[in-house]
Amino acid sequence: MDDKIRIVIDAMGGDRAPRVNVEGAVQAAQIYDYQLILVGDVKKIEKFLKLCDYPKDKISVMHASQKVDMGEAAAVSVRKKKDSSISVGLQMLKEKQADVFISAGNTGAVVAASTLKLRLLQTVERPGIALVVPTLKDPIVMIDVGANIDTKPLHLYQYAVMGSAYSHYILNKSKPSVGLLNIGEEESKGTDIIKEARTFIEKSGLNFIGNIEARDIYTGKCDVVVCDGFIGNVVLKVTEGFAHASTEMLKRELNRSLLPKIGAILSLPAYRAIRKKMDYREYGGAPLLGVDGAVIISHGSSNATAIRNAIRVAGEYVKNKVNFHIVEKLKMSESM
Amino acid sequence: MDDKIRIVIDAMGGDRAPRVNVEGAVQAAQIYDYQLILVGDVKKIEKFLKLCDYPKDKISVMHASQKVDMGEAAAVSVRKKKDSSISVGLQMLKEKQADVFISAGNTGAVVAASTLKLRLLQTVERPGIALVVPTLKDPIVMIDVGANIDTKPLHLYQYAVMGSAYSHYILNKSKPSVGLLNIGEEESKGTDIIKEARTFIEKSGLNFIGNIEARDIYTGKCDVVVCDGFIGNVVLKVTEGFAHASTEMLKRELNRSLLPKIGAILSLPAYRAIRKKMDYREYGGAPLLGVDGAVIISHGSSNATAIRNAIRVAGEYVKNKVNFHIVEKLKMSESM
Repeated sequence: MDDKIRIVIDAMGGDRAPRVNVEGAVQAAQIYDYQLILVGDVKKIEKFLKLCDYPKDKISVMHASQKVDMGEAAAVSVRKKKDSSISVGLQMLKEKQADVFISAGNTGAVVAASTLKLRLLQTVERPGIALVVPTLKDPIVMIDVGANIDTKPLHLYQYAVMGSAYSHYILNKSKPSVGLLNIGEEESKGTDIIKEARTFIEKSGLNFIGNIEARDIYTGKCDVVVCDGFIGNVVLKVTEGFAHASTEMLKRELNRSLLPKIGAILSLPAYRAIRKKMDYREYGGAPLLGVDGAVIISHGSSNATAIRNAIRVAGEYVKNKVNFHIVEKLKMSESM
Repeated sequence: MDDKIRIVIDAMGGDRAPRVNVEGAVQAAQIYDYQLILVGDVKKIEKFLKLCDYPKDKISVMHASQKVDMGEAAAVSVRKKKDSSISVGLQMLKEKQADVFISAGNTGAVVAASTLKLRLLQTVERPGIALVVPTLKDPIVMIDVGANIDTKPLHLYQYAVMGSAYSHYILNKSKPSVGLLNIGEEESKGTDIIKEARTFIEKSGLNFIGNIEARDIYTGKCDVVVCDGFIGNVVLKVTEGFAHASTEMLKRELNRSLLPKIGAILSLPAYRAIRKKMDYREYGGAPLLGVDGAVIISHGSSNATAIRNAIRVAGEYVKNKVNFHIVEKLKMSESM
């Protein structure tokens, strides 16, 4: 039992915590052979745990008296809430009492606390969140989607290396193609930061295909999309908003007369399938690449399935030794 | 006839030029009472004009021997192609031989040439492209969607003022609400540039609602979305790409079995209606606000309908004296 992967779950993070966090852990305990530790308010966690049926030896609880709110300033939360579920969970990682930490809480706070407590991998300047995104072809990796909004050329280059490693070891791409998100494909396009990053990545030995435009993200033109965290965050949120708005408009349109309504009912399962396929939350969690430890970030509006999927991702991350490979890849491309 | 609005159309700009440009002008000539001037290779233009039936006194042709390609570097094109359709068209505006210029060509080249030839309106530091975007509620204005990728706080503030004027005088919003695109609603979120812009806009006397997230663009949370041109461009392109990818996936899903297929056929008109509604190209053209002249930019993949709509937008822009009102609004908010 000692060599089981130990996964710490922030039970207090996310819009529907701790309920869905507990339920997700319970679901995972029924499928996977991991050691799960729920961190947070022990009373609240046990209230929900009591309602569930699960293998008792697979889930334990670790108390943390504080909780970082979703809107709280990241830096302040790290300084002031030493006993938050985020802090306590990461401390377990630091002290090697656990292998990986999952949180659906305040992303900024998780990034700041992880960087501070775990420190960064050798030569890494900034961590980046790598999200698996569904496309017309295979799922791809987009990095960074919100850890770093003050991106320098070197950060983008390191994202390319780390994203490639993730794509290779988790999505099994033998030689992942890397694209740099820009407003045009031509070399002359974009900000100075992007142009400089381009010259770095070109020399890296990665399978770099040059600039790609945002319209090519969902066609699956490349396996790894590299971008600044502000832009990556906007890409995800505009997709979410557009998917929501167009579905709403469609409903209105379909309700106008009978035939389209019948048509909608018949084709409903297909729409559900597609919404599920295009919903990146289904893919569970996004690792914070570059920190010296395994940290998986989940969407704030995660449900139990999303938490269960994050636990799956966390297990794979540890099993595949992603951090070890990132360090190797960074060394390799820096010696070129 | 002398007081008719004179609209110059770049006949050589866009992926399907000059055919759709000529056809769009012909369609517009049948509806509106404007004087239309097609600028470009006279032989090519007349080849298509000859095939059309239209009121001959409403369309004339002005020769330009050069053409700026879509991928050409903007600054170079301005310097080297003095006789391009873009240059010749803008020169007509400068010499008051025309009231407004429309191009579906290389956006960067149009922005650079307009800025150089027409100069900027009083106190304006950078022009911005204002696009009308469909939402769940009314259409809104998004500014900037690609003119300026080196955005300073003052530029964002001026976009807020210019976008408000456009929303008021073209979309008839009495007191347009303005939102600043950011990665979170909290004041603490975002880059230093955005934070500083926020304090400027707060003092402007505009109906400012603070930061908005990208997921709120299509819900119509505010009438004017202010953002950096790189971000605005990414927002549009990711929307385009996602709409395309999800439609493709849906088709595959629907073709899998019979009932969904029948359902799809019955509900098809509704899908078409919705795609049309969510397609910003339907809205015609986006003005380049801030230059001392009326310049309307169309999507590179414009069809004849899009060009016709751009001509409608161009006419309204001139009739409603948008530039005059922008200068007034800038004076007002600067004296506050």
